[in-house]
Amino acid sequence: MSIDSFEASKRRSDEIRADLSAHPENYLMLTGDRPTGRLHLGHYFGTIRERVALQGLGVRTNIIIADYQVITDRDTTEHIQDNVRNMVIDYLACGVDPEKTMIFTHSAVPALNQLMLPFLSLVTEAELQRNPTVKSEMEASGHALTGLLLTYPVHQACDILFCKGNVVPVGKDQLPHIEQTRLIARRFNERYGRVFPEPAGLLTDAVEIPGLDGRKMSKSYGNAISLSATEEETAKLIKKSKTDSERAITFDKENRPGVSALLTTAALCTGRAEADIAAEIGEAGAGALKKYVTESVNGFLAPIRERRRALEGDLGYIEDVLREGNRRANEIANATLDEVRAAMGMVY
Amino acid sequence: MSIDSFEASKRRSDEIRADLSAHPENYLMLTGDRPTGRLHLGHYFGTIRERVALQGLGVRTNIIIADYQVITDRDTTEHIQDNVRNMVIDYLACGVDPEKTMIFTHSAVPALNQLMLPFLSLVTEAELQRNPTVKSEMEASGHALTGLLLTYPVHQACDILFCKGNVVPVGKDQLPHIEQTRLIARRFNERYGRVFPEPAGLLTDAVEIPGLDGRKMSKSYGNAISLSATEEETAKLIKKSKTDSERAITFDKENRPGVSALLTTAALCTGRAEADIAAEIGEAGAGALKKYVTESVNGFLAPIRERRRALEGDLGYIEDVLREGNRRANEIANATLDEVRAAMGMVY
Repeated sequence: MSIDSFEASKRRSDEIRADLSAHPENYLMLTGDRPTGRLHLGHYFGTIRERVALQGLGVRTNIIIADYQVITDRDTTEHIQDNVRNMVIDYLACGVDPEKTMIFTHSAVPALNQLMLPFLSLVTEAELQRNPTVKSEMEASGHALTGLLLTYPVHQACDILFCKGNVVPVGKDQLPHIEQTRLIARRFNERYGRVFPEPAGLLTDAVEIPGLDGRKMSKSYGNAISLSATEEETAKLIKKSKTDSERAITFDKENRPGVSALLTTAALCTGRAEADIAAEIGEAGAGALKKYVTESVNGFLAPIRERRRALEGDLGYIEDVLREGNRRANEIANATLDEVRAAMGMVY
Repeated sequence: MSIDSFEASKRRSDEIRADLSAHPENYLMLTGDRPTGRLHLGHYFGTIRERVALQGLGVRTNIIIADYQVITDRDTTEHIQDNVRNMVIDYLACGVDPEKTMIFTHSAVPALNQLMLPFLSLVTEAELQRNPTVKSEMEASGHALTGLLLTYPVHQACDILFCKGNVVPVGKDQLPHIEQTRLIARRFNERYGRVFPEPAGLLTDAVEIPGLDGRKMSKSYGNAISLSATEEETAKLIKKSKTDSERAITFDKENRPGVSALLTTAALCTGRAEADIAAEIGEAGAGALKKYVTESVNGFLAPIRERRRALEGDLGYIEDVLREGNRRANEIANATLDEVRAAMGMVY
């Protein structure tokens, strides 16, 4: 996207951030995840922590489990039921409160998905092709560009607009999707009369969460600590992470990615600064660092894991949470679709 | 499409046509129209007559009023409610029996539309781009290629497959759409387990119905006789149609398009041959021909128009027919979507 529109997006985001705690009742946040695996520390510090904070402020929050997005770039839905249930468990264990936050899967909400039809008529094929994020996601996946990957920014517009979400937490690379949603909302309103808000991206000051090898934390890199891992699994993962041969521990992302990633992980989990931790460990070396990181992570995750275990023992409750979220999402989607049909004159 | 696959399509079509009257219970036909205006004689002789005949054979028939297709290549839904109601009136006046045939609008059936999501994942962007009919429709419309026009063959697959239609009456130019539907059904079944039939196109021996100027009958050419026109409007339209200066009436499509179109119109309405009508009128000239055509058309349409008038006076009944069709379509679509979710493991 152009620099101009980035600056406009940044300005909108800053204004909203400044206003959120003063007027939480004016905001409806929509955010979500693709259920392709377990949530990990990167998700927690990247987005889930903020969702819980916004929920705490009194902002209405909706979390979508974007199950159809799983097949934008792969040919299978293997383990999807398990992934979805564990995602709900992770959310609740992290403090998402289903009384305040609606958790739902878009495959369960037909009226939401129907919005694809009118919305696809509002964008040109050229505009779909121009989305830079779609292209880079296609390249990263190594999969042919499917019709669903090409059009999924339009489907994201359905996810956001069916509930009239007006705030969407995003990283910078997701801004083109928000722009496409704004465009769709604007064109719909112009053609058929005002139904939708124009949502704004809430830019997260993305601390990029490093995985254990210093690259971005991602399940596919094998460098991620899952919220659902046991203490032993966590210890093992940290133990086998790559550091370097220098004895003294220092924070230097550029030249010591492994050591620095461990320091950042411990810093996030303890609230301390990386340099302080490094100084404290000093000449005690990588072994001592790993021990400290393991204790920090396991200490931090202990209450989350305890709630996880309790929730895992009550899958009936997890199903109820999702069923109730889906029921509410359907209620909202049906009402919005009725408005859309009325605006378009499709009432027979 | 390639000649090979055309021949395969033709063979399938011939086999079905030969089998239809012997085993009507094996077939479920899906067909429909875009509600962009009134139905005319071209629709009647091109497709509606055949639908009524298939309904009479005992083939289960579903007729979709494809209201979202209106916005594939235009930016407005003006008059859509009126167009849809008049379409239902036309169907019933022509002999479609709502007890036997399900009439519905796809905008009223969310679970049908949801199939767009899994189906879009089954085709590549390159396959969408390759559809020759989409390209020619885009060019004919003079409108930019919208996301909806690009993907509407996938939406047609939803229309056909949600009710597990296995026969779709089509002209040759629509065969690429049927091929795309077959591909989607096949890929879905391969990936997730068998849910869908692979529908076949039933090629109509398209007498191309000429409009009053000899070109294909089409509302946009202003050469169409609507089923809903009055006798006077019909007489006027025929009167002002272009013939030529030669007195003797002969059937010669190449050199006398106006005269020949009038002869074909009368032939279709009376069941006589064009040459016989031409011989009978002979030297009496264009005035006598137009008189004969007017009487033939008005005579033919008289019972249809009489039923039309009765139905127009009972819009409550028309609404009931559509409401009942939509209710049944939703029932079927919900059941199919449940099967699709189960096959994909999206059951939470």
